[in-house]
Amino acid sequence: MRTRVAVIGGGPAGLLLGQLLHLDGIETVVIERRSREHVMGRIRAGVIETGTAELLRRAGVGARMDAEGLAHDGALFVGPSAELRVDFRDLVGRGVLVYGQTELTRDLYAARDAAGGVVIDRAEVTAIEGLDGPRPEIVYRRDGREGRIACDYVAGCDGHHGVSRRAIPAHALREHARALPFGWLGVLSRTRPTHPELIYARHPRGFALCSMRSAEVSRHYVQVPLSERVEDWSDARFWDELRARLPSWAAEATTPGPTIEKSIAPVRAFVAEPMRWGRLFLAGDAAHIVPPTGAKGLNLAAQDVGDLHAALRAAILEGDEAALDAYGPRALARVWRAVRFSWRLTRMLHVWPGADPFEERLQDAELAHLAASRRARAELAEAYVGLAFAPPEGGAPAPEGA
Amino acid sequence: MRTRVAVIGGGPAGLLLGQLLHLDGIETVVIERRSREHVMGRIRAGVIETGTAELLRRAGVGARMDAEGLAHDGALFVGPSAELRVDFRDLVGRGVLVYGQTELTRDLYAARDAAGGVVIDRAEVTAIEGLDGPRPEIVYRRDGREGRIACDYVAGCDGHHGVSRRAIPAHALREHARALPFGWLGVLSRTRPTHPELIYARHPRGFALCSMRSAEVSRHYVQVPLSERVEDWSDARFWDELRARLPSWAAEATTPGPTIEKSIAPVRAFVAEPMRWGRLFLAGDAAHIVPPTGAKGLNLAAQDVGDLHAALRAAILEGDEAALDAYGPRALARVWRAVRFSWRLTRMLHVWPGADPFEERLQDAELAHLAASRRARAELAEAYVGLAFAPPEGGAPAPEGA
Repeated sequence: MRTRVAVIGGGPAGLLLGQLLHLDGIETVVIERRSREHVMGRIRAGVIETGTAELLRRAGVGARMDAEGLAHDGALFVGPSAELRVDFRDLVGRGVLVYGQTELTRDLYAARDAAGGVVIDRAEVTAIEGLDGPRPEIVYRRDGREGRIACDYVAGCDGHHGVSRRAIPAHALREHARALPFGWLGVLSRTRPTHPELIYARHPRGFALCSMRSAEVSRHYVQVPLSERVEDWSDARFWDELRARLPSWAAEATTPGPTIEKSIAPVRAFVAEPMRWGRLFLAGDAAHIVPPTGAKGLNLAAQDVGDLHAALRAAILEGDEAALDAYGPRALARVWRAVRFSWRLTRMLHVWPGADPFEERLQDAELAHLAASRRARAELAEAYVGLAFAPPEGGAPAPEGA
Repeated sequence: MRTRVAVIGGGPAGLLLGQLLHLDGIETVVIERRSREHVMGRIRAGVIETGTAELLRRAGVGARMDAEGLAHDGALFVGPSAELRVDFRDLVGRGVLVYGQTELTRDLYAARDAAGGVVIDRAEVTAIEGLDGPRPEIVYRRDGREGRIACDYVAGCDGHHGVSRRAIPAHALREHARALPFGWLGVLSRTRPTHPELIYARHPRGFALCSMRSAEVSRHYVQVPLSERVEDWSDARFWDELRARLPSWAAEATTPGPTIEKSIAPVRAFVAEPMRWGRLFLAGDAAHIVPPTGAKGLNLAAQDVGDLHAALRAAILEGDEAALDAYGPRALARVWRAVRFSWRLTRMLHVWPGADPFEERLQDAELAHLAASRRARAELAEAYVGLAFAPPEGGAPAPEGA
């Protein structure tokens, strides 16, 4: 088989790239290790920045998001001695959209099917060859048989455990990792949200987050040690623990409901450098993982894809390869700023390894500072709704108010 | 001897409190362990916030500061991959004043002498008695003889190693401490400043700071391991090391000059709780130490003194003790916000213990974020020029521009 761009990974990053390239008339093949049903069933993030939403609209997959997504203009941050709302729209002139990644993946598959795009699922990539030349080849195994895809470019969108990153020679690859000894126990349930906006809660028992997917489906999280097993968390235990970490008004507003999904996700940071190797371009989780606290994972992936799409389009349709060279450094600069933000929020809100009263006082002071300083809230809001929209230095000022 | 307020410690905090109380006609006695010459010779901070400057003027000791102090409307932050100016005046409508603490101490002694205020120097306080009753007594030893001062209130302004804090019973005292394995090697020299504004420099060899006291006297610092001895740092070695950590333009603008003083100061954070015990009130370094990076030490001390003066005045002249009760909690909230800020700047700019490329990338990202985001610079500027001036939540907005 031959195609222009071989996309490894059929999650939202790979599918979005395929869709954007399709709209330019550039052919792609998407290769996915798992079944489509598995991919579509995964529960992931749900906070979509303005820039991500615009990219999705541009890709023609924004209709259901716009119809069903929940516009959020602020979020609450609560702690033992402070409770405050960060009013995104007032502070930086825009908000975010809450729309589940699961729904988005479904929309992307529908678009790909409508466009007649090829997705080879249940296919294990066993080799990526010729990345240093003009005609790379993907070798894969499906139903016991080997297949090959010849292409001009390879997009590595196959997540943290994917094979793409490992195609970069070890001597050229630098991996930065920070694992934390805790994770997020998340419960997706059929119940109305605790509050119309997200609640980020710092508590001596650990971090908690009240989130939602719709007016009837909630997503709640509690920080747990990584040693915890999801089987040990009955629904009753989960809801008790969650409510113990919330202010009383929020605990009272939290109604347990039938569990749809329950799982523990690690909290960690990971960045691979470079993001480009010859004809291979990494995008999304294949190159970087950020702690989930800032809700940046999906948005970073979308920004990678937006940049990579523009670069591939310029290379393929106009023969201009300069944007391909710029892709990695530009993406990494953005990624590290997102790591900075996610790390800072994580640190501010979680019970940290080795935490002592000094650390706790600093965390209290962070929240007190946010409560007291509009400028501190504006800095947080800007990063939360998406730095990609920050004007460049010397550019037009961002709107300072509503 | 009998007085209204016994002030332990004849540094700027104690003298400023004495002066403010004197203007209200409230008698004080200042007791200082070292000689006046020693106190006046100490080299300390030099960045004065607007609020501190106003308090000094109110105390009648601002004339020379206003005549000789250097108005700074911004500062530079430089690193391996970013160089930026934080324009305080543009961002938050005010700047800071650079005026050496040594000069300020001189002004305060001159004022005390003019007012006929008592300073007992070279006096070692051996006991503070009766703090839980209405008539505390200070017992001290001077020239081999014991003396006693009976008073209504005791102000503990005797610094980190002073005796005041230790007068709080161990069961009631909580000390939060974070020591870092590095310090600042500082050189005061007779040479013109590297640059008209302060330069905060992050470098793989360690942090460096270019500061000044006047147009002819500079104060430069380099981060060194705490194991270093000042005797091992010749002038030549110091200037070479400093210049190696600066951008080339700044290295070229740095001219070595005759050394006036050279010393190594630890970088640490320390907060004691409570700040009030019976009739004892701690102020300044006696209660808290912040890393010097944010230039907050003297300013926090001045804010403590400003609050303590108002509280003592209300208690003594109006019989209203409510402000005395509020003093500690109010001061501690301010102190922890200053610790937060100083710790964050310290972390952003120094080679940190256990630092690895992940940490370095985060530091790069901090500077890149500041360079790219006006809101991030505004948040930093607000804290740098003095949070005490931030309006309370719901109050009048702070000026957003020049």
